[in-house]
Amino acid sequence: MGFQKMPGTQDLLPGSVERWQFVEGKAREICRRFNFREIRTPIFESTDLFRRGVGETTDIVEKEMYTFEDRGGRSLTLRPEGTAGAVRAYVENKLYGEPDLTKLYYIGSMFRYERQQAGRYRQFHQFGVEALGSAEPALDAEVIALGYTFYTEVGLRGVRVEINSVGTPAVRAAFRAKLLEFLEPKRSILCKDCQSRMDRNPLRVLDCKVDQQHFEGAPSILDSLDEECTVHFEKVKAYLTDMNIPYEINSRLVRGLDYYTHTAFEFKAEGIGAIDTIGGGGRYNGLVGDIGGPDQPGVGFGLGIERTVMILEHQQGAESVAQPLDVYLVALGEAAEVEVSRQLNVLRMAGLSADRDYQGRKMKAQMKSADRFAARFTGILGDDELALGQIALKRMDTGEQRMVSLAELAAAIKGE
Amino acid sequence: MGFQKMPGTQDLLPGSVERWQFVEGKAREICRRFNFREIRTPIFESTDLFRRGVGETTDIVEKEMYTFEDRGGRSLTLRPEGTAGAVRAYVENKLYGEPDLTKLYYIGSMFRYERQQAGRYRQFHQFGVEALGSAEPALDAEVIALGYTFYTEVGLRGVRVEINSVGTPAVRAAFRAKLLEFLEPKRSILCKDCQSRMDRNPLRVLDCKVDQQHFEGAPSILDSLDEECTVHFEKVKAYLTDMNIPYEINSRLVRGLDYYTHTAFEFKAEGIGAIDTIGGGGRYNGLVGDIGGPDQPGVGFGLGIERTVMILEHQQGAESVAQPLDVYLVALGEAAEVEVSRQLNVLRMAGLSADRDYQGRKMKAQMKSADRFAARFTGILGDDELALGQIALKRMDTGEQRMVSLAELAAAIKGE
Repeated sequence: MGFQKMPGTQDLLPGSVERWQFVEGKAREICRRFNFREIRTPIFESTDLFRRGVGETTDIVEKEMYTFEDRGGRSLTLRPEGTAGAVRAYVENKLYGEPDLTKLYYIGSMFRYERQQAGRYRQFHQFGVEALGSAEPALDAEVIALGYTFYTEVGLRGVRVEINSVGTPAVRAAFRAKLLEFLEPKRSILCKDCQSRMDRNPLRVLDCKVDQQHFEGAPSILDSLDEECTVHFEKVKAYLTDMNIPYEINSRLVRGLDYYTHTAFEFKAEGIGAIDTIGGGGRYNGLVGDIGGPDQPGVGFGLGIERTVMILEHQQGAESVAQPLDVYLVALGEAAEVEVSRQLNVLRMAGLSADRDYQGRKMKAQMKSADRFAARFTGILGDDELALGQIALKRMDTGEQRMVSLAELAAAIKGE
Repeated sequence: MGFQKMPGTQDLLPGSVERWQFVEGKAREICRRFNFREIRTPIFESTDLFRRGVGETTDIVEKEMYTFEDRGGRSLTLRPEGTAGAVRAYVENKLYGEPDLTKLYYIGSMFRYERQQAGRYRQFHQFGVEALGSAEPALDAEVIALGYTFYTEVGLRGVRVEINSVGTPAVRAAFRAKLLEFLEPKRSILCKDCQSRMDRNPLRVLDCKVDQQHFEGAPSILDSLDEECTVHFEKVKAYLTDMNIPYEINSRLVRGLDYYTHTAFEFKAEGIGAIDTIGGGGRYNGLVGDIGGPDQPGVGFGLGIERTVMILEHQQGAESVAQPLDVYLVALGEAAEVEVSRQLNVLRMAGLSADRDYQGRKMKAQMKSADRFAARFTGILGDDELALGQIALKRMDTGEQRMVSLAELAAAIKGE
């Protein structure tokens, strides 16, 4: 009997991991251009951090966290999202004391014990950014532009941005009262989720996929914004327009986390069937203070890497994107085998990718390996060639073959 | 009050994360040359996998694992090392059925609840490789060469390889008996660790740092090798010599894991004070079968990234290795600020790294930011320049400044 990976986790194997490498490489490259720098925070944090930072009444904290005690009796939780840890690190390491704005990005594993369904993982991966220390609307627009640029350059088609303003806590409290006034008479005809959300976080009710037909005439938070919120929102929209980023306003957009203020946004793409949300974020001007830091504003997003890769594969096909091998060496005979290992090392030291057979297979099987690795060259070494200090070098695209001195093998491969 | 990271975990911040990026980039590059491909396995696995794969009587399994139950009642463990998961994935995904040898690498977080001390982390990071499907001694040498090349190209000075043969299980059983005969009379004068190891894994006793003075005249496992083991070991050594890899034989080298057969090796470097073991590995011909797979041999290593980075900093100094910014834009006035955000986006779309101030600071403070980011250029935009559709572009190394049309800004920066 064998062991199996745990439900909701996955193995990324050669042949599919290359697309992840590509997506992550793009994320890093775009962050370089936008001057965001990498931060790596621990996989687990104190459970209290997420209770405070994500919100006691969120689904995540109530139902989905991997929480356990370590051998010292501390309650630990595998991080369910990236912002709380990044903000904790910002505060603990006093990054707010530095003269420049703190612009961070992270790429990493997150953990939520979710109901099992296709495309949902309990260990999943996010690319996120956090810009801390400025309340400027231009920075909200920059963060949205960063995400949009990432999706576009990764090659996703049909990416759209939806934005909303969720106002300040005061604005939201007033709107919540108005909204409940509208919802209360309908309570009994709404779905269970909506009923429970009415008590915990009524703004999320309007996001419900089942009950949309009951929400006609519902109040819009955009009508409840005060002047400060309106000016901020108008400026963000103007910056997006200036940067040619296509966006739509969705006044019912509320993210699943409690800490957003002002701007909230989501990225959508034509997915597998329906339109999928592939990422989102917003401004969080209270969060740094909430977790014990100074009163510093922030804005950021978290994008799902699984979702991005899945839609890319759907749009482009799943064929492997492995790099070709520079040269595959075939040895005929025992002395040749020793020499081939020596040569491999010389080629690799010279920066070339090179491999050989280690399974004692016949030459024909070895040539098939060369094909599978998309080798640019094969080198064939028998006892006769070895005696002359030469090797037969074959260029695989043209089939052209010539004898090359072993001492010049790396140069011959690099030169062609 | 603020939150703190959990003991034994760390935040990698901009300024130090760049060295990690460099080290990991080198690992990926060397693996490309050696034709090893990346695998990513889950952060947690079933606890039983590690009990079986790492060994019931090891310190790791007995004392150091982060084990907990998920909400479905499964016993999970945060991976304490990388081999068990990689081999589990090899078996579960039937990679042994592919025609080529399976050569894998991984870079990732591992977790062990260790006693706290300087340079020891409970979440730590390893770069590891596993080559599965061949018992060829040339492959042992290739794996050792890969690790040696990694350390060398990363820039570590004074790297040495120590190797040993720990034989087959039969050879080891015979040697264990011989060794115990030698150790029994000394039991009472040996340290507590040694006494406990005598019962659990006597081969590890000879590794003890405290009791070396009592081990003179101890039997050597190399004298107990049968012919198969001797031939294998001789070939590995010959290949290493052929590849100019400096190595020493250390007949007392036993790794902390139970599964090694034949070759065991460690990499050492001049550390901070003493000579440090910075990584190690070996051949494990029984492990794939142990965890429920077919009888396939394997060989691999795991190298500590913390240790590598720490010694690099010790040898080279800890100065930051951040990439310079291409251009920092300074806006004077509100209209200029809007235009600067638009220009930033154009520059970033053109592949350049670019930034601005978002904190409403004076020009002098902004120029200091440009210096901190090691900006190659600064662009200064006031209302007068804006009216002309131009910007003052200053080259920071020469101080030379000229007016450039906004439409040609990216080209001007790329062209110089």
